[in-house]
Amino acid sequence: MSTSGRPHGDARKERILDVALKTFADNGFRGASIAEIADRCGLSQPGLLHHFPSKAALLAAVLDHRDRLDAERLGFGEELRGAEALERLATLVEHNAQLPGLVRLFTVVTGEAVAEGHPAHDWAVRRYRALEGFLARALEAGVADGTLAPGIDAAAVARQVFAMMDGLQSQWLLDPSSADMPALFRDYIEQLIARISVAGN
Amino acid sequence: MSTSGRPHGDARKERILDVALKTFADNGFRGASIAEIADRCGLSQPGLLHHFPSKAALLAAVLDHRDRLDAERLGFGEELRGAEALERLATLVEHNAQLPGLVRLFTVVTGEAVAEGHPAHDWAVRRYRALEGFLARALEAGVADGTLAPGIDAAAVARQVFAMMDGLQSQWLLDPSSADMPALFRDYIEQLIARISVAGN
Repeated sequence: MSTSGRPHGDARKERILDVALKTFADNGFRGASIAEIADRCGLSQPGLLHHFPSKAALLAAVLDHRDRLDAERLGFGEELRGAEALERLATLVEHNAQLPGLVRLFTVVTGEAVAEGHPAHDWAVRRYRALEGFLARALEAGVADGTLAPGIDAAAVARQVFAMMDGLQSQWLLDPSSADMPALFRDYIEQLIARISVAGN
Repeated sequence: MSTSGRPHGDARKERILDVALKTFADNGFRGASIAEIADRCGLSQPGLLHHFPSKAALLAAVLDHRDRLDAERLGFGEELRGAEALERLATLVEHNAQLPGLVRLFTVVTGEAVAEGHPAHDWAVRRYRALEGFLARALEAGVADGTLAPGIDAAAVARQVFAMMDGLQSQWLLDPSSADMPALFRDYIEQLIARISVAGN
């Protein structure tokens, strides 16, 4: 990564986030240690803790970093509606297939986070609500503009779409040669669009 | 649990499996300790290790135990075909909604197991292959008997079905009040059956 022109502290923080992402993805939150992350960054533990005061704070920063990248790619804040929003998700999954470390981070930490009291539990709950809210609103906009059928349960469809995405991610991480994640997800999205579109749109 | 009529050693093993299941479900494999499990069973560590020689061996026994319960419920080995197999899965999910500890075990351990070298990695790979093989064969039997449309990709449908099941489990564990797992899964299965059935069956 080029860091020319960045303040030295920001470059170091980005380096720590990159290393921490890989370490959490490989070992989960519980299996990762601050000592190992510091060592892989060439820092002392106090040096690392100067930037992030605890392992939980470091995980939160890594997850926020991943969410920002995904939000940029999803086009949150743009005017996406109806089938276009669904197709954008299929494109995101194709992109994620190039980034197994990032997908592994999300899968391992979300798996751990189903336990109450895990430091990422509230992040994971908020994250699903935000993603589902984004997609449900986009689907409702498609109903409003007449391209999607009235009467669809936008919130239910949104939950199913993210469930399919997550489940295919797990299968693909476990067994990359047998599960063609992007093709299986795009097939699901195309069937869904065919089912909920108004004919002719 | 009634243990009348069982040999004492078997009853103790079942007790250890029950406690271990709950501990792995709460803490994951990495976060669970043999010391804690032994303590919750009222055993010394050597006493526990007499029955299961390592934490990995204990996890393997717990996962095998869960798989046997699921296989019985799924009717593996019975003659299930086509839409009937899909409906049986929807019934399984309704049953699982009564057993959050068991679902949490599976979700946490499968999440961890995407890392190579995790003691449950090979179990998770084999498990998906077995489940997908079972369902793909049942769908192909439905094509053969004329109830399902020829030309469906049975292996792809099977992967999507288990992806949906797993993804909805995660959402439900994280946020039980907002994600109605059994209803969302049954809705998906009914849409799928409508799409791949031959009209009139």
